[in-house]
Amino acid sequence: MNLSFGACPIPVEGGDVVVLAHGGGGRLQEQLLDKLIMPIFANDVLTTRHDGAILPTFGGKTVVTTDSFVVTPRFFPGGNIGKLAVSGTINDLAMCGARPVALTVALVIEEGFVLAELRTILHAMQEEAQSLSVSIVAGDTKVVGRGQVDGLFITTTGVGEVVATNPVLPRRVVPGDAVIVSGDIGRHGMAVLCARSGFLDGEPLMSDVASLWRPVSALFAAGLDVHCLRDATRGGLAAVVTEIATSASVTVELDEPLIPVDAKVRGICELFGIDPVHVANEGRFVAFVPDTMADRVLDILRGQPGCHNACRVGQVVPARIAPVILRTAIGVERILDRPFGEQLPRIC
Amino acid sequence: MNLSFGACPIPVEGGDVVVLAHGGGGRLQEQLLDKLIMPIFANDVLTTRHDGAILPTFGGKTVVTTDSFVVTPRFFPGGNIGKLAVSGTINDLAMCGARPVALTVALVIEEGFVLAELRTILHAMQEEAQSLSVSIVAGDTKVVGRGQVDGLFITTTGVGEVVATNPVLPRRVVPGDAVIVSGDIGRHGMAVLCARSGFLDGEPLMSDVASLWRPVSALFAAGLDVHCLRDATRGGLAAVVTEIATSASVTVELDEPLIPVDAKVRGICELFGIDPVHVANEGRFVAFVPDTMADRVLDILRGQPGCHNACRVGQVVPARIAPVILRTAIGVERILDRPFGEQLPRIC
Repeated sequence: MNLSFGACPIPVEGGDVVVLAHGGGGRLQEQLLDKLIMPIFANDVLTTRHDGAILPTFGGKTVVTTDSFVVTPRFFPGGNIGKLAVSGTINDLAMCGARPVALTVALVIEEGFVLAELRTILHAMQEEAQSLSVSIVAGDTKVVGRGQVDGLFITTTGVGEVVATNPVLPRRVVPGDAVIVSGDIGRHGMAVLCARSGFLDGEPLMSDVASLWRPVSALFAAGLDVHCLRDATRGGLAAVVTEIATSASVTVELDEPLIPVDAKVRGICELFGIDPVHVANEGRFVAFVPDTMADRVLDILRGQPGCHNACRVGQVVPARIAPVILRTAIGVERILDRPFGEQLPRIC
Repeated sequence: MNLSFGACPIPVEGGDVVVLAHGGGGRLQEQLLDKLIMPIFANDVLTTRHDGAILPTFGGKTVVTTDSFVVTPRFFPGGNIGKLAVSGTINDLAMCGARPVALTVALVIEEGFVLAELRTILHAMQEEAQSLSVSIVAGDTKVVGRGQVDGLFITTTGVGEVVATNPVLPRRVVPGDAVIVSGDIGRHGMAVLCARSGFLDGEPLMSDVASLWRPVSALFAAGLDVHCLRDATRGGLAAVVTEIATSASVTVELDEPLIPVDAKVRGICELFGIDPVHVANEGRFVAFVPDTMADRVLDILRGQPGCHNACRVGQVVPARIAPVILRTAIGVERILDRPFGEQLPRIC
């Protein structure tokens, strides 16, 4: 299913208001960024549009990244908002080829929030951070009145140190690169959708939420020249591949039959009429590597926890009619686009 | 007025819920930090309890700090939530003796928020950051449904580079140090209170919101060995002096008649029964410096914008009966404590 609604420009201009789709990872969010936020904050670091910012100071090795977590429900099969906040930020650093060094945590808590739940969430944060020897070095706690926030919002900022020898950047993606996903896609978004709706009483669908530094660092430890990495969060595989292909002025051809999707996830997606390529993941990434290295990358990834389904799903070619073209099982090609508006399902 | 309600322990234990006072900068917030958050995230950097965390990596010169801004109203005389968010984070870096290098910004926006207002706030952020040549290098935008957040919350994280030759830390405060405030106190809290309540139709009381890196850097540029700095935000002068005196195991004697308070601020405080020493500031700091340097510090500060009222307000002595003792105009001494619960007025 292609969720693009065609040309339907909604200007981000005076008199307008923010709509949910401005945060959905689709084209409307891109408009908010391109037309409002980026022109105001314009600077060379911000405009690289990477998951993290590589600071020109400190020898050019320091990366920072920030993310707010507003997920509902706060607890879902496989994790909670705390685990998500820490692993999400660690992943943004990892995608820049940076070892996570330290995290900061800012909590905005609604009056009346149960302390026992807060404790559980904080423990999940610490457990996830400690599993990679990352310290939570600074924080902030704000309490707001009832109704001023939906329970708990967490903003995590990560500081990392670049370990990749060559830059890991969208603009390094070139024709000939292989496109690899680190595991089967669509679990997190559908797990949240099921948990939210009460759908599926039986064995729950588990989110893929996980820190990705270990598999990523294994690639660098092997000396592989990874061109670009991106975790497939909001907007799913389709959105991140589109964004990178657009940045690099190339086309990515994806082979639909090769994209790994768990049977249960596929079933739920079909029921809701959602294409798994648009569903958010929280523990899956896409790697762009030279074709000659693809087999080695797959060998290494498949030995890493959570990555045994790693798969080559496509290749980079010189720019064609669209940034991403999906080749279906019967050989038909169709243009894959980001959703124009809201993500389906919303994960935050 | 002493807002302490005496010994009335409210345990931060299971079954309890978060109350507004847990974010008020008083003793109840300290309990939340000491009993819940700190034990879970425990590490050497976090437990220094400074405004920012000095990372052991990158040559020990990198500082990070984070803060969420949830102020109501978002616009007040002298500033708005955007200016506040940027200057507040710059100030936390400055208080560590660190030059601000880069900021990240995470926005959580309510569906229906007016884009023109968002633009004004973002411009205020950029203007404040640019005034100190600081770039906003990374960001995140989440949109949540109506009623899930009160308009707009901003979380800013700052990365800075330590320029102070000696560490600027609470534990360096020693008996003999002079205690200096950088200007008259109480403006921000009372400006917000007036703006919120519609009190004062005439000329509005202006917030003191300002970035403090220029005056602070002037002290370092002069080679002065500043022992400790702290911006007097939540909980006001009383809270920050109490926290530092407690950390350093000393007593601070404050001379009430020397504490600069604008006549208008004093009048409003008296009307509401609030002591200005408990009112939050967003552009004032307290400096602990060796007695012999006090005059030079004052000379330098008074030449800086916003600091012409800088004043020596007390001295550090060996530990007495309480961390902070206030000597009134008639020579009576009283113990100054943090409020137990909520800040008055709440600024966030």
